Amino acid sequence: MSYLPIQQLLQATPGTDVTVKGWVRTKRESKNAVFIAINDGSTINTIQAVAEAGQLPDDLLRQITTGACVAITGQLVESIGSGQNVEVKITDVLVYGPADPEKYPLQPKRHSLEFLREIAHLRPRTNTFSAILRVRHALAFAVHKYFNDNGFYYLNTPIITASDAEGAGEMFRVTTLDPVNPPRTEDGKVDYSEDFFGRETNLTVSGQLEGELGALALGKIYTFGPTFRAENSNTTRHLAEFWMIEPEMAFHELEDNMNLAEEFVKSVIRYALDHCADDLAFLDNRLKDEEKTKKKDEQSDLSLLEKLRFVVDNQFERLTYTEAVDILINSKPAKKGQFQYEVKWGIDLQSEHERYLVERHFKKPVILTNYPRAIKAFYMKQDSDPATNSRGDVFGPTVRAMDVLFPGIGEIIGGSQREDDLDKLVARMQEVGIEPEALWWYLDTRRFGSAPHAGFGLGFERLVQFVTGMGNIRDVIPFPRAPKSAEF
Amino acid sequence: MSYLPIQQLLQATPGTDVTVKGWVRTKRESKNAVFIAINDGSTINTIQAVAEAGQLPDDLLRQITTGACVAITGQLVESIGSGQNVEVKITDVLVYGPADPEKYPLQPKRHSLEFLREIAHLRPRTNTFSAILRVRHALAFAVHKYFNDNGFYYLNTPIITASDAEGAGEMFRVTTLDPVNPPRTEDGKVDYSEDFFGRETNLTVSGQLEGELGALALGKIYTFGPTFRAENSNTTRHLAEFWMIEPEMAFHELEDNMNLAEEFVKSVIRYALDHCADDLAFLDNRLKDEEKTKKKDEQSDLSLLEKLRFVVDNQFERLTYTEAVDILINSKPAKKGQFQYEVKWGIDLQSEHERYLVERHFKKPVILTNYPRAIKAFYMKQDSDPATNSRGDVFGPTVRAMDVLFPGIGEIIGGSQREDDLDKLVARMQEVGIEPEALWWYLDTRRFGSAPHAGFGLGFERLVQFVTGMGNIRDVIPFPRAPKSAEF
Repeated sequence: MSYLPIQQLLQATPGTDVTVKGWVRTKRESKNAVFIAINDGSTINTIQAVAEAGQLPDDLLRQITTGACVAITGQLVESIGSGQNVEVKITDVLVYGPADPEKYPLQPKRHSLEFLREIAHLRPRTNTFSAILRVRHALAFAVHKYFNDNGFYYLNTPIITASDAEGAGEMFRVTTLDPVNPPRTEDGKVDYSEDFFGRETNLTVSGQLEGELGALALGKIYTFGPTFRAENSNTTRHLAEFWMIEPEMAFHELEDNMNLAEEFVKSVIRYALDHCADDLAFLDNRLKDEEKTKKKDEQSDLSLLEKLRFVVDNQFERLTYTEAVDILINSKPAKKGQFQYEVKWGIDLQSEHERYLVERHFKKPVILTNYPRAIKAFYMKQDSDPATNSRGDVFGPTVRAMDVLFPGIGEIIGGSQREDDLDKLVARMQEVGIEPEALWWYLDTRRFGSAPHAGFGLGFERLVQFVTGMGNIRDVIPFPRAPKSAEF
Repeated sequence: MSYLPIQQLLQATPGTDVTVKGWVRTKRESKNAVFIAINDGSTINTIQAVAEAGQLPDDLLRQITTGACVAITGQLVESIGSGQNVEVKITDVLVYGPADPEKYPLQPKRHSLEFLREIAHLRPRTNTFSAILRVRHALAFAVHKYFNDNGFYYLNTPIITASDAEGAGEMFRVTTLDPVNPPRTEDGKVDYSEDFFGRETNLTVSGQLEGELGALALGKIYTFGPTFRAENSNTTRHLAEFWMIEPEMAFHELEDNMNLAEEFVKSVIRYALDHCADDLAFLDNRLKDEEKTKKKDEQSDLSLLEKLRFVVDNQFERLTYTEAVDILINSKPAKKGQFQYEVKWGIDLQSEHERYLVERHFKKPVILTNYPRAIKAFYMKQDSDPATNSRGDVFGPTVRAMDVLFPGIGEIIGGSQREDDLDKLVARMQEVGIEPEALWWYLDTRRFGSAPHAGFGLGFERLVQFVTGMGNIRDVIPFPRAPKSAEF
């Protein structure tokens, strides 16, 4: 290949002959020259190519429009204008593919995010979405790098699963049965023994249970793959298909788990800050513009970059659920009746409560621990003593859960130490109505060589949202899947 | 955490106080001492812990059996026996979880791979499977590292897709409709407009078409995610759920594509050789033992490690399909009638033909190009001239396809330059019965700023098979999915 990506060209030494391949962003004609800005997706920056007036034939010039794909040969020279160090003095232009200005939807003007969602197949050609996707890539690589550097093994847990015992949410059914006339059992139900896998199967909602199997053999593992929720929620925070990162570690207890979660999430954000300076600067400006359209009191105190640096540089606040409830009960909004949901020990904290703690009380990321057992999953390790607060009030049983709460996002990480005592685990399963037989393989890890272990899950898109400052989760995944929406 | 993984402990300086946490592999008692071999999954190697006879209470000693999980504190000392440099002089043993020898299935003896497949939840605790999974991890990381280092962006293409136009294979349906009484249209068909996504949806068979959208915006992208085939084939080479790597590059033509494929696959194999020496040495020995059980003439000439080094060190042979057909027609097996399928221009080469070319004729990896158009997918770039052989025979139209064939595996990579001419692409779609309207978004990339581009797909499990020497693809993924099989 005799050409360089624009990212590298912009750093090359003037004087060399070069070929630029990419898509025209803008064309500008002055009396003496034609200026073409080219982008090839390798960077948010364009390179400027310049021809003398009259140098390019008219019919060629007419094809050089926004969105057209071109190969430009010429000489890399010092740029006289502002902006960049170098530009290309054009010798020749080849148009690979034109883009009819009457039909191409991405003309150089501001497009709404809603409109761009409808053309998700083209939106990566815009500055905003190419920046988001490059940052998304950097974050994904940082995830793999962090775990690889720290002795974790990547475990591909199954996507299609017959275990629906976890109860983490509504599931999608996976089937090859005839939908019109499925085979039926004598009592008229669908006969799944005839289905592809010989049983009813669904798309996974979490790789955690299988991840535990891995951790109790390999020590430290992580998953990073797609997970699914068939919930009919058309919000800016939910996707039907999203990517989840789930590390699971033998010999880690709750505090180790918190230390890891904090170090991990700081590490990947730091990686993005170090490797995506141009894209984050662009997204920082984008968010500033967006904030200006809001009411003064709804504007964020910190810019995107300030928020990212703040998270990386500060220790997360750690406290128990019970302590958090006390803070909330004694808070101004509670006393003024401004919370929609009343706070008392035992409730599942609502978004308004989490936001108060993170954004107004502590003004930094918060890790809440030791939640009431009744509102958490069966596999979490049971605390031996019931919760008490500073006034000596005694509450119900708790589990060694932890949630990491981020400003603007809410829960970004949820995890726990896992129950490693077979009897306690089985008792809890029966209490919540899960048939232990259905998870015989999971329980085998507690029957044979059980070990203290812990893990957590991080929704990758929530992380990308936080780092890019995008308000709608559908804008941080290339092709979002949501109710009534599976185009492309 | 006050303990180190065994991988690090084995390289630590003798004299320090240490804690080892892991699972007992074996316990051996002599007159003077007890020797316990511990593994924690961080490495294939065990660390030996030694107690004096009588030092440990009998009831504790009885719990230290194969599979039990323990924490051992003691002093790291130079090892007198053979094997390792260091061992642990035991001060104290804590048993986290016992493993009843009467019930624990992984007693220290040889288990068949078939048996281990039935206990896939425990098999990562064996040497063979922990080695495979660590190598799998290293290969996955090498994939991300290679692409990241070379300016590719990781693109998460959708898993749930409404596009069934590619025709790459049978698909799994994804639905939340009532299976017993689904909503129906007036003519009695299932009314998918009532389904979760408002249309019929399936699990993806390939991210390529969406990958092309990414490449024509970001330049170079790759996917690495699960893909699915609902084919009822119970073979050692097929899975219903497997992981695929699909790079796609703007401004790459067929030869660039071949160069990239060869450099990429060599790079990740070299990474495994450099980073998995212990695991590969173990798997090399395992394969040698397995080979010994075969007939002399079925045994491989090269050991596993020799085969890997051979691939890394030698240039792949490149030739056209037409040239390959000539070689096959003139081959001994063809003349002796030993091929099951007759060779003539136009056929889809069978496994026996590919193996002859790779294993007997060239004795190295082979890249075949320019296949007959009729046997390849609609999106491949059409060659302008028909194929001719050295005798001047003229054959039908071809496309700029390439398949990379590996010894023992057959096709490990399949790819092509893509058709970037809108009219030719549409004509070909109509020829094979694909409605252009269904792929309007795909065709938009040829309508607006079309560019020469190319890409390929590599089945990750095929690669792991090749690098680990495992004969059955179900043994290189943690929880295989196959017809009538979705346990765990």
